Amino acid sequence: MPGPDEEAHAPASDRVRVRRGAIRAEYDRAAILEVLDAGLIAHVGVVTDSGPIVLPMAYGRSDDWLYLHGSAANAALRAAAGRDVCVTVTIVDGIVVGRSPFHNSMNYRGVVVRGTARSVDDRTEHVEALRLVSDHVVATWETGRAPTELEIRKTMVIAVPLVEMSAKIRTGDPIDEPEDLEGPHWGGHVPIRSVWEPAVPALDLHDGVEVPPAIRSLDGRLV
Amino acid sequence: MPGPDEEAHAPASDRVRVRRGAIRAEYDRAAILEVLDAGLIAHVGVVTDSGPIVLPMAYGRSDDWLYLHGSAANAALRAAAGRDVCVTVTIVDGIVVGRSPFHNSMNYRGVVVRGTARSVDDRTEHVEALRLVSDHVVATWETGRAPTELEIRKTMVIAVPLVEMSAKIRTGDPIDEPEDLEGPHWGGHVPIRSVWEPAVPALDLHDGVEVPPAIRSLDGRLV
Repeated sequence: MPGPDEEAHAPASDRVRVRRGAIRAEYDRAAILEVLDAGLIAHVGVVTDSGPIVLPMAYGRSDDWLYLHGSAANAALRAAAGRDVCVTVTIVDGIVVGRSPFHNSMNYRGVVVRGTARSVDDRTEHVEALRLVSDHVVATWETGRAPTELEIRKTMVIAVPLVEMSAKIRTGDPIDEPEDLEGPHWGGHVPIRSVWEPAVPALDLHDGVEVPPAIRSLDGRLV
Repeated sequence: MPGPDEEAHAPASDRVRVRRGAIRAEYDRAAILEVLDAGLIAHVGVVTDSGPIVLPMAYGRSDDWLYLHGSAANAALRAAAGRDVCVTVTIVDGIVVGRSPFHNSMNYRGVVVRGTARSVDDRTEHVEALRLVSDHVVATWETGRAPTELEIRKTMVIAVPLVEMSAKIRTGDPIDEPEDLEGPHWGGHVPIRSVWEPAVPALDLHDGVEVPPAIRSLDGRLV
């Protein structure tokens, strides 16, 4: 019988169990959501009549749902509604250089969410989901011009349950062969540092419009 | 009959035609390869018995093939061999803030490659592919310890033809509604700047091992 600690760290389903590098698996809900909150875009996999397609999409989340949005004419989004999808969010933190290229790797934080996508048709949830996606990276919903009815209707939203999911996190050094440690080859890692640069006003922005505080506060912050 | 210019900029197949935001589509081979060469990781979509799965993977390329590698025990890689896959590479360059959140977007460079993955079994191509993947981000193959026979055999490689592919590139300002331009709302974009930090030696690195020039030269360079 698994102890309480093992139970808390088991995947919700077998299809989101991390198989390769299982030592880096993370099934703790808070840790998974932390990676989702830090990511910028998701890569969404859908099966179409012409094979699998993987497209980058903006996303947002509530406590229970991951939301994706797009044009109501978006074929991949329409194909996803009611079907199994895989939503993958990956943040690359750097490269790992082993003594042998065989042990090269990357440092990263990644989440995989699998589940059946649901078309969001309820008006209140639809608008709230648009806000969550809009505000995921930086909160612009409140300071922007409110969306019109037409804009809302033109935007399709699908929801994936935050249930079947797992994270995989790698940090630090390569794991080299013991017999290579005394050899002449270098091992280590090279971090990537991503920061927000100053906001660039649109060429057609008229004078006297202030940069919203949420956007101004990004300047120099780590992405 | 399409003119020569249109022919040169047509997709290789209908399933890699960019449908949404077609004005940002790029079918020029050199432009597509430039994005592939700039990317760090690919998100690879495969159809499994339990639905689509999208996993982040390192990659490399020759003139004609995109190579992916992984453990010979990697279930997703094994599932991909001989089947349709979608390989998507996305570089996020910043966020785009519209006067209305409806016109929020991202600036990015992205490529989608679709095709039937081939298991690479030829010994020469297998080793060359491992070198191409290893050297994709930074060349470490020559300065590292040479791979052993066992390491080579433990690493599976699949190849996807660089034929059915398209890029989508977005830069610059939001495209707002004309009637919003005189309003009180801000519009513009916020670039992300990603740089390589100084290389961090492994904790178990013994004294006197120099950082290889290719790795040292990353320091401060844009990713």
